[in-house]
Amino acid sequence: MGENVVSAEKLNERLIANPFNNWMGLKILTLDEDSLEIGLKWREEMISNPMARVTHGGILGALIDVAADFMIAAKVGMPVPTVDLRVDYHSAAKPGDLKVVANIVRIGGTNSVAEARVFDSEGKLIASGRGTYFTAAAKKSK
Amino acid sequence: MGENVVSAEKLNERLIANPFNNWMGLKILTLDEDSLEIGLKWREEMISNPMARVTHGGILGALIDVAADFMIAAKVGMPVPTVDLRVDYHSAAKPGDLKVVANIVRIGGTNSVAEARVFDSEGKLIASGRGTYFTAAAKKSK
Amino acid sequence: MGENVVSAEKLNERLIANPFNNWMGLKILTLDEDSLEIGLKWREEMISNPMARVTHGGILGALIDVAADFMIAAKVGMPVPTVDLRVDYHSAAKPGDLKVVANIVRIGGTNSVAEARVFDSEGKLIASGRGTYFTAAAKKSK
Amino acid sequence: MGENVVSAEKLNERLIANPFNNWMGLKILTLDEDSLEIGLKWREEMISNPMARVTHGGILGALIDVAADFMIAAKVGMPVPTVDLRVDYHSAAKPGDLKVVANIVRIGGTNSVAEARVFDSEGKLIASGRGTYFTAAAKKSK
Repeated sequence: MGENVVSAEKLNERLIANPFNNWMGLKILTLDEDSLEIGLKWREEMISNPMARVTHGGILGALIDVAADFMIAAKVGMPVPTVDLRVDYHSAAKPGDLKVVANIVRIGGTNSVAEARVFDSEGKLIASGRGTYFTAAAKKSK
Repeated sequence: MGENVVSAEKLNERLIANPFNNWMGLKILTLDEDSLEIGLKWREEMISNPMARVTHGGILGALIDVAADFMIAAKVGMPVPTVDLRVDYHSAAKPGDLKVVANIVRIGGTNSVAEARVFDSEGKLIASGRGTYFTAAAKKSK
Repeated sequence: MGENVVSAEKLNERLIANPFNNWMGLKILTLDEDSLEIGLKWREEMISNPMARVTHGGILGALIDVAADFMIAAKVGMPVPTVDLRVDYHSAAKPGDLKVVANIVRIGGTNSVAEARVFDSEGKLIASGRGTYFTAAAKKSK
Repeated sequence: MGENVVSAEKLNERLIANPFNNWMGLKILTLDEDSLEIGLKWREEMISNPMARVTHGGILGALIDVAADFMIAAKVGMPVPTVDLRVDYHSAAKPGDLKVVANIVRIGGTNSVAEARVFDSEGKLIASGRGTYFTAAAKKSK
Protein backbone atom coordinates (compact mmCIF):
# COMPACT_ATOMS: atom_id res chain seq x y z
CA MET A 1 0.00 0.00 0.00
CA GLY A 2 2.98 2.32 -0.18
CA GLU A 3 5.00 4.05 2.53
CA ASN A 4 3.93 6.89 4.77
CA VAL A 5 4.55 10.23 3.08
CA VAL A 6 3.93 12.46 6.13
CA SER A 7 5.49 12.38 9.59
CA ALA A 8 3.51 11.92 12.80
CA GLU A 9 4.50 15.46 13.81
CA LYS A 10 3.13 17.04 10.63
CA LEU A 11 -0.04 14.95 10.84
CA ASN A 12 -0.53 15.95 14.47
CA GLU A 13 -0.24 19.64 13.57
CA ARG A 14 -2.96 19.13 10.99
CA LEU A 15 -5.06 17.09 13.43
CA ILE A 16 -5.18 19.72 16.14
CA ALA A 17 -5.60 22.69 13.78
CA ASN A 18 -9.12 21.25 13.43
CA PRO A 19 -11.30 22.88 16.15
CA PHE A 20 -13.55 19.88 16.85
CA ASN A 21 -10.57 17.51 17.00
CA ASN A 22 -8.99 19.97 19.39
CA TRP A 23 -12.17 20.09 21.50
CA MET A 24 -11.97 16.29 21.76
CA GLY A 25 -8.36 16.62 22.94
CA LEU A 26 -7.06 14.42 20.13
CA LYS A 27 -3.34 13.72 19.86
CA ILE A 28 -1.37 11.30 17.69
CA LEU A 29 0.30 8.76 19.98
CA THR A 30 2.09 6.55 17.46
CA LEU A 31 2.29 6.17 13.70
CA ASP A 32 4.02 3.44 11.74
CA GLU A 33 3.51 2.00 8.25
CA ASP A 34 0.63 -0.23 9.41
CA SER A 35 -1.21 1.67 12.08
CA LEU A 36 -2.03 5.02 13.62
CA GLU A 37 -2.92 5.50 17.27
CA ILE A 38 -4.75 8.61 18.48
CA GLY A 39 -5.64 9.49 22.07
CA LEU A 40 -8.79 11.35 23.16
CA LYS A 41 -8.98 13.41 26.35
CA TRP A 42 -12.33 12.75 27.96
CA ARG A 43 -14.52 15.68 29.06
CA GLU A 44 -17.80 15.92 30.93
CA GLU A 45 -19.67 17.32 27.88
CA MET A 46 -19.02 14.02 26.06
CA ILE A 47 -21.54 12.19 28.23
CA SER A 48 -24.67 10.78 26.69
CA ASN A 49 -27.17 9.24 29.14
CA PRO A 50 -26.65 11.28 32.35
CA MET A 51 -27.64 8.40 34.65
CA ALA A 52 -25.50 5.73 33.01
CA ARG A 53 -22.76 8.32 32.34
CA VAL A 54 -21.61 6.65 29.14
CA THR A 55 -19.69 8.45 26.41
CA HIS A 56 -21.87 9.60 23.49
CA GLY A 57 -21.85 7.37 20.42
CA GLY A 58 -21.29 10.45 18.28
CA ILE A 59 -17.91 10.94 19.92
CA LEU A 60 -16.96 7.31 19.23
CA GLY A 61 -18.05 7.66 15.62
CA ALA A 62 -16.07 10.88 15.22
CA LEU A 63 -12.98 9.15 16.65
CA ILE A 64 -13.25 6.27 14.17
CA ASP A 65 -13.74 8.66 11.27
CA VAL A 66 -10.79 10.87 12.22
CA ALA A 67 -8.42 7.96 12.86
CA ALA A 68 -9.30 6.18 9.61
CA ASP A 69 -8.94 9.43 7.67
CA PHE A 70 -5.56 10.30 9.21
CA MET A 71 -4.20 6.78 8.61
CA ILE A 72 -5.05 7.35 4.95
CA ALA A 73 -3.56 10.87 5.17
CA ALA A 74 -0.25 9.27 6.18
CA LYS A 75 -0.29 7.44 2.82
CA VAL A 76 -1.71 10.12 0.51
CA GLY A 77 -0.38 13.29 2.15
CA MET A 78 -3.49 14.87 3.65
CA PRO A 79 -6.87 14.05 5.15
CA VAL A 80 -9.50 13.60 2.40
CA PRO A 81 -13.32 13.76 2.39
CA THR A 82 -15.22 10.92 4.03
CA VAL A 83 -17.60 9.32 1.54
CA ASP A 84 -19.33 7.17 4.14
CA LEU A 85 -18.75 5.53 7.49
CA ARG A 86 -19.91 2.46 9.40
CA VAL A 87 -19.65 2.33 13.17
CA ASP A 88 -20.29 -0.74 15.35
CA TYR A 89 -20.92 -0.13 19.05
CA HIS A 90 -19.63 -3.00 21.19
CA SER A 91 -19.73 -1.80 24.82
CA ALA A 92 -20.70 1.25 26.80
CA ALA A 93 -17.74 3.60 27.31
CA LYS A 94 -17.36 4.75 30.92
CA PRO A 95 -15.95 8.23 31.61
CA GLY A 96 -12.22 8.25 30.85
CA ASP A 97 -9.71 8.88 28.10
CA LEU A 98 -9.99 6.77 24.94
CA LYS A 99 -7.60 5.44 22.35
CA VAL A 100 -8.31 4.64 18.71
CA VAL A 101 -6.15 2.48 16.43
CA ALA A 102 -6.57 2.71 12.64
CA ASN A 103 -5.35 0.48 9.80
CA ILE A 104 -5.56 0.64 6.03
CA VAL A 105 -7.88 -1.83 4.30
CA ARG A 106 -7.07 -0.61 0.79
CA ILE A 107 -5.55 2.46 -0.83
CA GLY A 108 -7.08 3.26 -4.22
CA GLY A 109 -6.77 6.10 -6.71
CA THR A 110 -10.41 7.16 -6.38
CA ASN A 111 -11.49 5.80 -2.99
CA SER A 112 -9.66 4.19 -0.10
CA VAL A 113 -10.95 2.25 2.88
CA ALA A 114 -9.56 2.23 6.42
CA GLU A 115 -10.81 0.71 9.65
CA ALA A 116 -10.42 1.70 13.30
CA ARG A 117 -11.05 0.32 16.79
CA VAL A 118 -11.74 2.40 19.92
CA PHE A 119 -10.48 1.18 23.32
CA ASP A 120 -11.21 2.52 26.80
CA SER A 121 -8.49 3.25 29.35
CA GLU A 122 -8.50 -0.41 30.46
CA GLY A 123 -7.95 -1.66 26.91
CA LYS A 124 -11.52 -2.86 26.38
CA LEU A 125 -12.86 -2.68 22.80
CA ILE A 126 -15.69 -0.12 22.86
CA ALA A 127 -16.48 0.50 19.20
CA SER A 128 -15.06 -0.19 15.75
CA GLY A 129 -15.81 0.65 12.17
CA ARG A 130 -14.63 1.46 8.69
CA GLY A 131 -14.98 4.30 6.25
CA THR A 132 -14.57 5.06 2.57
CA TYR A 133 -12.44 8.11 1.77
CA PHE A 134 -12.20 10.04 -1.51
CA THR A 135 -8.44 9.85 -2.12
CA ALA A 136 -8.71 11.40 -5.57
CA ALA A 137 -9.07 14.72 -3.69
CA ALA A 138 -5.45 14.46 -2.52
CA LYS A 139 -4.18 14.14 -6.09
CA LYS A 140 -6.22 17.14 -7.22
CA SER A 141 -4.80 19.45 -4.61
CA LYS A 142 -1.15 18.61 -5.30
CA MET B 1 -45.43 0.41 13.18
CA GLY B 2 -47.58 1.53 16.07
CA GLU B 3 -48.35 4.95 17.46
CA ASN B 4 -46.06 7.28 19.34
CA VAL B 5 -46.07 6.50 23.06
CA VAL B 6 -44.17 9.60 24.23
CA SER B 7 -44.88 13.28 23.63
CA ALA B 8 -42.45 15.66 21.94
CA GLU B 9 -42.15 17.55 25.25
CA LYS B 10 -41.13 14.47 27.23
CA LEU B 11 -38.72 13.37 24.51
CA ASN B 12 -37.17 16.82 24.40
CA GLU B 13 -36.57 16.74 28.17
CA ARG B 14 -34.78 13.46 27.76
CA LEU B 15 -32.85 14.77 24.73
CA ILE B 16 -31.38 17.78 26.48
CA ALA B 17 -30.69 15.99 29.78
CA ASN B 18 -27.89 14.40 27.73
CA PRO B 19 -24.79 16.64 28.08
CA PHE B 20 -23.39 16.09 24.57
CA ASN B 21 -26.79 16.65 22.96
CA ASN B 22 -27.03 19.80 25.04
CA TRP B 23 -23.55 20.89 23.91
CA MET B 24 -24.77 20.50 20.30
CA GLY B 25 -27.76 22.70 21.13
CA LEU B 26 -30.24 20.02 20.07
CA LYS B 27 -33.97 20.69 20.31
CA ILE B 28 -36.98 18.77 19.03
CA LEU B 29 -38.73 20.92 16.44
CA THR B 30 -41.60 18.66 15.40
CA LEU B 31 -42.73 15.10 16.03
CA ASP B 32 -45.55 13.23 14.35
CA GLU B 33 -46.27 9.54 13.77
CA ASP B 34 -43.96 9.40 10.75
CA SER B 35 -41.10 11.75 11.44
CA LEU B 36 -39.05 13.58 14.02
CA GLU B 37 -37.26 16.84 13.34
CA ILE B 38 -34.41 18.05 15.55
CA GLY B 39 -32.53 21.34 15.24
CA LEU B 40 -28.81 21.82 16.01
CA LYS B 41 -27.34 25.15 17.10
CA TRP B 42 -24.03 25.61 15.32
CA ARG B 43 -20.93 26.55 17.30
CA GLU B 44 -17.38 27.42 16.33
CA GLU B 45 -15.92 24.29 17.98
CA MET B 46 -17.86 22.15 15.48
CA ILE B 47 -15.55 23.13 12.64
CA SER B 48 -13.38 20.52 11.00
CA ASN B 49 -10.91 21.83 8.39
CA PRO B 50 -10.14 25.39 9.63
CA MET B 51 -9.48 26.74 6.11
CA ALA B 52 -12.61 25.31 4.47
CA ARG B 53 -14.59 25.94 7.71
CA VAL B 54 -16.86 22.94 7.19
CA THR B 55 -18.74 21.25 10.02
CA HIS B 56 -17.03 18.08 11.34
CA GLY B 57 -18.38 14.79 10.03
CA GLY B 58 -18.50 13.51 13.60
CA ILE B 59 -21.16 16.10 14.40
CA LEU B 60 -23.22 15.05 11.37
CA GLY B 61 -22.92 11.40 12.37
CA ALA B 62 -23.94 12.19 15.95
CA LEU B 63 -26.99 14.08 14.66
CA ILE B 64 -28.11 11.15 12.51
CA ASP B 65 -27.63 8.71 15.39
CA VAL B 66 -29.55 10.86 17.88
CA ALA B 67 -32.43 11.59 15.53
CA ALA B 68 -32.85 7.94 14.48
CA ASP B 69 -32.68 6.83 18.11
CA PHE B 70 -35.25 9.39 19.29
CA MET B 71 -37.65 8.57 16.43
CA ILE B 72 -37.51 4.99 17.71
CA ALA B 73 -37.86 6.28 21.30
CA ALA B 74 -41.17 7.87 20.28
CA LYS B 75 -42.41 4.35 19.40
CA VAL B 76 -40.84 2.27 22.20
CA GLY B 77 -40.82 4.77 25.05
CA MET B 78 -37.15 5.60 25.49
CA PRO B 79 -33.89 5.92 23.55
CA VAL B 80 -32.17 2.51 23.24
CA PRO B 81 -28.58 1.44 22.53
CA THR B 82 -27.24 1.91 19.01
CA VAL B 83 -26.03 -1.40 17.59
CA ASP B 84 -24.43 0.16 14.51
CA LEU B 85 -24.71 3.18 12.26
CA ARG B 86 -24.05 4.07 8.63
CA VAL B 87 -23.48 7.67 7.61
CA ASP B 88 -23.27 8.98 4.03
CA TYR B 89 -21.68 12.39 3.53
CA HIS B 90 -23.20 14.23 0.58
CA SER B 91 -21.97 17.83 0.76
CA ALA B 92 -19.75 20.00 2.92
CA ALA B 93 -21.73 21.75 5.66
CA LYS B 94 -20.96 25.46 5.91
CA PRO B 95 -21.13 27.17 9.33
CA GLY B 96 -24.76 27.51 10.38
CA ASP B 97 -27.54 25.75 12.24
CA LEU B 98 -28.58 22.30 10.99
CA LYS B 99 -31.79 20.29 10.94
CA VAL B 100 -32.17 16.53 10.94
CA VAL B 101 -35.29 14.58 9.97
CA ALA B 102 -35.69 10.95 11.05
CA ASN B 103 -38.09 8.19 9.95
CA ILE B 104 -38.72 4.62 11.01
CA VAL B 105 -37.62 1.89 8.61
CA ARG B 106 -38.85 -0.96 10.82
CA ILE B 107 -39.74 -1.49 14.47
CA GLY B 108 -38.86 -4.98 15.72
CA GLY B 109 -38.88 -6.69 19.09
CA THR B 110 -35.13 -7.23 19.19
CA ASN B 111 -33.75 -4.60 16.81
CA SER B 112 -35.25 -1.65 14.97
CA VAL B 113 -33.92 0.43 12.09
CA ALA B 114 -34.42 4.15 11.50
CA GLU B 115 -32.98 6.56 8.98
CA ALA B 116 -32.23 10.28 9.07
CA ARG B 117 -31.26 13.14 6.75
CA VAL B 118 -29.33 16.28 7.75
CA PHE B 119 -30.08 19.60 6.04
CA ASP B 120 -28.23 22.92 6.25
CA SER B 121 -30.00 26.22 6.91
CA GLU B 122 -30.77 26.57 3.18
CA GLY B 123 -32.43 23.16 3.03
CA LYS B 124 -29.56 21.43 1.23
CA LEU B 125 -29.07 17.73 2.00
CA ILE B 126 -25.69 17.45 3.75
CA ALA B 127 -25.61 13.89 5.09
CA SER B 128 -27.90 10.93 5.62
CA GLY B 129 -27.77 7.49 7.14
CA ARG B 130 -29.43 4.71 9.06
CA GLY B 131 -28.83 2.83 12.26
CA THR B 132 -29.83 -0.38 14.00
CA TYR B 133 -31.13 0.05 17.57
CA PHE B 134 -31.55 -2.60 20.28
CA THR B 135 -35.23 -2.14 21.09
CA ALA B 136 -35.32 -5.20 23.37
CA ALA B 137 -33.62 -2.91 25.94
CA ALA B 138 -36.81 -0.83 26.21
CA LYS B 139 -38.89 -3.88 27.11
CA LYS B 140 -36.37 -4.97 29.74
CA SER B 141 -36.44 -1.67 31.56
CA LYS B 142 -40.22 -1.46 31.74
CA MET C 1 -32.65 15.15 -8.80
CA GLY C 2 -33.41 15.38 -12.48
CA GLU C 3 -35.67 13.34 -14.72
CA ASN C 4 -35.24 9.77 -15.85
CA VAL C 5 -33.11 9.58 -19.00
CA VAL C 6 -33.77 5.91 -19.83
CA SER C 7 -37.04 4.03 -20.32
CA ALA C 8 -38.10 1.04 -18.24
CA GLU C 9 -37.87 -1.11 -21.38
CA LYS C 10 -34.25 -0.14 -22.11
CA LEU C 11 -33.29 -0.59 -18.45
CA ASN C 12 -34.93 -4.00 -18.38
CA GLU C 13 -32.94 -5.11 -21.44
CA ARG C 14 -29.78 -4.09 -19.66
CA LEU C 15 -30.92 -5.76 -16.42
CA ILE C 16 -31.51 -9.17 -17.93
CA ALA C 17 -28.45 -9.11 -20.19
CA ASN C 18 -26.62 -9.63 -16.89
CA PRO C 19 -26.35 -13.41 -16.30
CA PHE C 20 -26.67 -13.35 -12.49
CA ASN C 21 -29.65 -10.99 -12.65
CA ASN C 22 -31.14 -13.35 -15.19
CA TRP C 23 -30.48 -16.34 -12.93
CA MET C 24 -32.39 -14.50 -10.18
CA GLY C 25 -35.28 -14.01 -12.62
CA LEU C 26 -35.20 -10.23 -12.21
CA LYS C 27 -37.66 -8.08 -14.14
CA ILE C 28 -38.50 -4.39 -13.93
CA LEU C 29 -42.14 -4.09 -12.81
CA THR C 30 -42.56 -0.31 -12.69
CA LEU C 31 -40.38 2.78 -13.04
CA ASP C 32 -41.34 6.37 -12.39
CA GLU C 33 -39.37 9.49 -11.46
CA ASP C 34 -39.27 8.54 -7.78
CA SER C 35 -39.05 4.78 -7.62
CA LEU C 36 -38.11 1.57 -9.39
CA GLU C 37 -39.74 -1.77 -8.65
CA ILE C 38 -38.05 -5.04 -9.62
CA GLY C 39 -39.47 -8.55 -9.19
CA LEU C 40 -37.40 -11.67 -8.39
CA LYS C 41 -38.50 -15.17 -9.35
CA TRP C 42 -37.73 -17.48 -6.45
CA ARG C 43 -35.84 -20.74 -7.08
CA GLU C 44 -34.91 -23.65 -4.86
CA GLU C 45 -31.15 -22.90 -5.09
CA MET C 46 -31.76 -19.58 -3.29
CA ILE C 47 -32.39 -21.33 0.02
CA SER C 48 -30.03 -20.79 2.90
CA ASN C 49 -30.71 -22.92 6.01
CA PRO C 50 -32.26 -26.11 4.56
CA MET C 51 -34.38 -26.80 7.67
CA ALA C 52 -35.80 -23.29 8.04
CA ARG C 53 -35.96 -22.93 4.22
CA VAL C 54 -35.32 -19.19 4.29
CA THR C 55 -33.96 -17.26 1.33
CA HIS C 56 -30.20 -16.63 1.50
CA GLY C 57 -29.16 -13.18 2.74
CA GLY C 58 -26.79 -12.92 -0.21
CA ILE C 59 -29.77 -12.94 -2.57
CA LEU C 60 -31.47 -10.17 -0.57
CA GLY C 61 -28.27 -8.11 -0.61
CA ALA C 62 -27.87 -8.63 -4.36
CA LEU C 63 -31.47 -7.47 -4.90
CA ILE C 64 -30.93 -4.28 -2.91
CA ASP C 65 -27.70 -3.55 -4.76
CA VAL C 66 -29.22 -4.12 -8.20
CA ALA C 67 -32.36 -2.09 -7.49
CA ALA C 68 -30.45 0.87 -6.04
CA ASP C 69 -28.01 0.80 -8.96
CA PHE C 70 -30.77 0.66 -11.62
CA MET C 71 -32.74 3.49 -9.95
CA ILE C 72 -29.57 5.54 -10.32
CA ALA C 73 -29.14 4.23 -13.87
CA ALA C 74 -32.54 5.71 -14.70
CA LYS C 75 -31.11 9.13 -13.77
CA VAL C 76 -27.55 8.88 -15.17
CA GLY C 77 -28.11 6.61 -18.17
CA MET C 78 -26.47 3.34 -17.14
CA PRO C 79 -25.70 1.20 -14.10
CA VAL C 80 -22.46 2.34 -12.43
CA PRO C 81 -19.99 0.64 -10.06
CA THR C 82 -21.09 0.05 -6.47
CA VAL C 83 -18.67 1.70 -4.05
CA ASP C 84 -20.19 0.13 -0.95
CA LEU C 85 -23.45 -1.28 0.32
CA ARG C 86 -25.28 -1.64 3.62
CA VAL C 87 -27.96 -4.26 4.08
CA ASP C 88 -30.31 -4.60 7.07
CA TYR C 89 -32.06 -7.93 7.52
CA HIS C 90 -35.49 -7.51 9.12
CA SER C 91 -37.28 -10.86 8.78
CA ALA C 92 -36.65 -14.32 7.41
CA ALA C 93 -37.85 -14.64 3.80
CA LYS C 94 -39.94 -17.74 3.21
CA PRO C 95 -39.80 -19.44 -0.23
CA GLY C 96 -41.63 -17.29 -2.77
CA ASP C 97 -41.11 -14.47 -5.26
CA LEU C 98 -39.78 -11.16 -3.95
CA LYS C 99 -40.16 -7.52 -4.88
CA VAL C 100 -37.68 -4.70 -4.31
CA VAL C 101 -38.46 -0.98 -4.41
CA ALA C 102 -35.63 1.55 -4.82
CA ASN C 103 -35.48 5.32 -4.34
CA ILE C 104 -32.83 7.97 -4.84
CA VAL C 105 -31.30 9.51 -1.72
CA ARG C 106 -29.02 11.86 -3.65
CA ILE C 107 -27.57 12.16 -7.15
CA GLY C 108 -24.06 13.61 -7.20
CA GLY C 109 -21.41 14.15 -9.85
CA THR C 110 -18.91 11.80 -8.22
CA ASN C 111 -21.03 9.50 -6.04
CA SER C 112 -24.74 8.96 -5.64
CA VAL C 113 -26.71 7.18 -2.94
CA ALA C 114 -29.89 5.14 -3.35
CA GLU C 115 -31.87 2.97 -0.98
CA ALA C 116 -34.08 -0.08 -1.46
CA ARG C 117 -36.56 -2.26 0.43
CA VAL C 118 -37.29 -5.94 -0.23
CA PHE C 119 -40.81 -7.31 0.32
CA ASP C 120 -42.05 -10.90 0.27
CA SER C 121 -45.10 -12.01 -1.69
CA GLU C 122 -47.38 -10.97 1.19
CA GLY C 123 -45.95 -7.45 1.29
CA LYS C 124 -43.88 -7.97 4.43
CA LEU C 125 -40.63 -5.97 4.68
CA ILE C 126 -37.81 -8.54 4.63
CA ALA C 127 -34.66 -6.46 4.18
CA SER C 128 -33.59 -2.93 3.31
CA GLY C 129 -30.43 -1.01 2.68
CA ARG C 130 -28.55 1.67 0.83
CA GLY C 131 -25.50 1.89 -1.37
CA THR C 132 -23.04 4.42 -2.72
CA TYR C 133 -22.55 4.37 -6.50
CA PHE C 134 -19.74 5.92 -8.55
CA THR C 135 -21.77 8.07 -10.94
CA ALA C 136 -18.67 9.75 -12.39
CA ALA C 137 -18.25 6.50 -14.37
CA ALA C 138 -21.39 7.31 -16.38
CA LYS C 139 -19.99 10.67 -17.47
CA LYS C 140 -16.68 9.11 -18.50
CA SER C 141 -18.29 6.56 -20.78
CA LYS C 142 -20.45 9.09 -22.66
CA MET D 1 -12.69 -14.30 22.29
CA GLY D 2 -12.74 -17.94 23.28
CA GLU D 3 -11.71 -21.08 21.43
CA ASN D 4 -13.38 -22.70 18.46
CA VAL D 5 -16.13 -25.09 19.57
CA VAL D 6 -16.74 -26.72 16.17
CA SER D 7 -14.34 -28.47 13.81
CA ALA D 8 -13.73 -27.37 10.22
CA GLU D 9 -15.27 -30.66 9.05
CA LYS D 10 -18.52 -30.14 10.95
CA LEU D 11 -18.72 -26.51 9.82
CA ASN D 12 -18.14 -27.54 6.22
CA GLU D 13 -21.01 -30.06 6.41
CA ARG D 14 -23.27 -27.29 7.63
CA LEU D 15 -21.92 -24.88 4.98
CA ILE D 16 -22.71 -27.11 2.02
CA ALA D 17 -26.05 -28.34 3.36
CA ASN D 18 -27.15 -24.80 2.43
CA PRO D 19 -28.36 -24.88 -1.21
CA PHE D 20 -27.17 -21.39 -2.20
CA ASN D 21 -23.76 -21.95 -0.61
CA ASN D 22 -23.61 -25.19 -2.52
CA TRP D 23 -24.57 -23.42 -5.76
CA MET D 24 -21.64 -21.05 -5.16
CA GLY D 25 -19.37 -24.08 -4.74
CA LEU D 26 -18.29 -22.98 -1.27
CA LYS D 27 -15.82 -25.10 0.69
CA ILE D 28 -13.93 -24.44 3.93
CA LEU D 29 -10.22 -24.36 3.10
CA THR D 30 -8.72 -23.67 6.53
CA LEU D 31 -9.95 -22.79 10.01
CA ASP D 32 -7.88 -21.81 13.01
CA GLU D 33 -8.64 -19.78 16.15
CA ASP D 34 -8.16 -16.46 14.34
CA SER D 35 -9.40 -16.96 10.81
CA LEU D 36 -11.57 -18.95 8.46
CA GLU D 37 -10.85 -19.34 4.76
CA ILE D 38 -13.56 -20.38 2.31
CA GLY D 39 -13.14 -21.03 -1.42
CA LEU D 40 -15.78 -20.26 -4.08
CA LYS D 41 -15.97 -22.14 -7.38
CA TRP D 42 -16.69 -19.64 -10.11
CA ARG D 43 -19.51 -20.28 -12.57
CA GLU D 44 -20.71 -18.47 -15.68
CA GLU D 45 -24.04 -17.47 -14.09
CA MET D 46 -22.13 -15.35 -11.55
CA ILE D 47 -21.29 -12.75 -14.17
CA SER D 48 -22.69 -9.25 -13.88
CA ASN D 49 -21.96 -6.93 -16.82
CA PRO D 50 -21.73 -9.34 -19.80
CA MET D 51 -19.26 -7.13 -21.72
CA ALA D 52 -16.86 -6.53 -18.84
CA ARG D 53 -17.47 -10.08 -17.57
CA VAL D 54 -16.99 -9.15 -13.92
CA THR D 55 -18.37 -11.19 -11.04
CA HIS D 56 -21.66 -9.84 -9.63
CA GLY D 57 -21.37 -7.75 -6.48
CA GLY D 58 -24.17 -9.79 -4.95
CA ILE D 59 -21.93 -12.86 -5.05
CA LEU D 60 -19.11 -10.95 -3.33
CA GLY D 61 -21.51 -9.71 -0.66
CA ALA D 62 -22.88 -13.21 -0.10
CA LEU D 63 -19.32 -14.52 0.30
CA ILE D 64 -18.47 -11.91 2.93
CA ASP D 65 -21.69 -12.59 4.82
CA VAL D 66 -21.21 -16.36 4.81
CA ALA D 67 -17.55 -16.21 5.83
CA ALA D 68 -18.16 -13.75 8.68
CA ASP D 69 -21.12 -15.82 9.90
CA PHE D 70 -19.19 -19.10 9.82
CA MET D 71 -16.18 -17.58 11.61
CA ILE D 72 -18.62 -16.66 14.37
CA ALA D 73 -20.20 -20.13 14.11
CA ALA D 74 -16.79 -21.60 14.96
CA LYS D 75 -16.94 -19.69 18.27
CA VAL D 76 -20.63 -20.02 19.17
CA GLY D 77 -21.44 -23.44 17.69
CA MET D 78 -23.66 -22.61 14.73
CA PRO D 79 -24.31 -19.91 12.10
CA VAL D 80 -26.62 -17.20 13.48
CA PRO D 81 -28.88 -14.59 11.83
CA THR D 82 -27.20 -11.63 10.13
CA VAL D 83 -28.44 -8.37 11.62
CA ASP D 84 -26.78 -6.19 9.00
CA LEU D 85 -23.86 -6.18 6.61
CA ARG D 86 -21.51 -3.67 5.02
CA VAL D 87 -19.65 -4.48 1.84
CA ASP D 88 -16.88 -2.39 0.23
CA TYR D 89 -16.09 -3.09 -3.41
CA HIS D 90 -12.41 -2.49 -4.19
CA SER D 91 -11.78 -3.94 -7.65
CA ALA D 92 -13.65 -5.71 -10.43
CA ALA D 93 -13.45 -9.49 -10.07
CA LYS D 94 -12.53 -11.24 -13.32
CA PRO D 95 -13.92 -14.74 -14.00
CA GLY D 96 -12.17 -17.24 -11.73
CA ASP D 97 -12.40 -18.92 -8.36
CA LEU D 98 -12.42 -16.68 -5.28
CA LYS D 99 -11.24 -16.99 -1.70
CA VAL D 100 -12.61 -15.21 1.36
CA VAL D 101 -10.85 -14.83 4.71
CA ALA D 102 -12.87 -13.95 7.83
CA ASN D 103 -11.82 -12.75 11.30
CA ILE D 104 -13.66 -11.98 14.50
CA VAL D 105 -13.95 -8.32 15.52
CA ARG D 106 -15.85 -9.05 18.71
CA ILE D 107 -17.89 -11.88 20.21
CA GLY D 108 -20.76 -10.64 22.40
CA GLY D 109 -23.65 -12.30 24.17
CA THR D 110 -26.30 -10.49 22.12
CA ASN D 111 -24.50 -9.47 18.92
CA SER D 112 -21.09 -10.25 17.47
CA VAL D 113 -19.16 -8.60 14.66
CA ALA D 114 -16.86 -10.27 12.14
CA GLU D 115 -15.08 -9.00 9.04
CA ALA D 116 -14.01 -10.65 5.80
CA ARG D 117 -11.90 -9.98 2.72
CA VAL D 118 -12.40 -11.50 -0.74
CA PHE D 119 -9.39 -12.24 -2.97
CA ASP D 120 -9.27 -13.33 -6.61
CA SER D 121 -7.18 -16.25 -7.84
CA GLU D 122 -4.12 -13.99 -8.11
CA GLY D 123 -4.42 -12.84 -4.50
CA LYS D 124 -5.79 -9.38 -5.32
CA LEU D 125 -8.20 -7.84 -2.77
CA ILE D 126 -11.57 -7.56 -4.53
CA ALA D 127 -14.00 -6.70 -1.75
CA SER D 128 -14.20 -6.56 2.03
CA GLY D 129 -16.74 -5.90 4.70
CA ARG D 130 -18.16 -6.60 8.11
CA GLY D 131 -21.42 -7.76 9.57
CA THR D 132 -23.30 -7.86 12.85
CA TYR D 133 -24.63 -11.29 13.86
CA PHE D 134 -27.27 -12.12 16.48
CA THR D 135 -25.30 -14.55 18.66
CA ALA D 136 -28.05 -14.73 21.29
CA ALA D 137 -29.81 -17.07 18.84
CA ALA D 138 -27.11 -19.71 19.40
CA LYS D 139 -27.69 -19.71 23.15
CA LYS D 140 -31.44 -20.03 22.70
CA SER D 141 -31.17 -23.11 20.53
CA LYS D 142 -28.84 -25.00 22.86
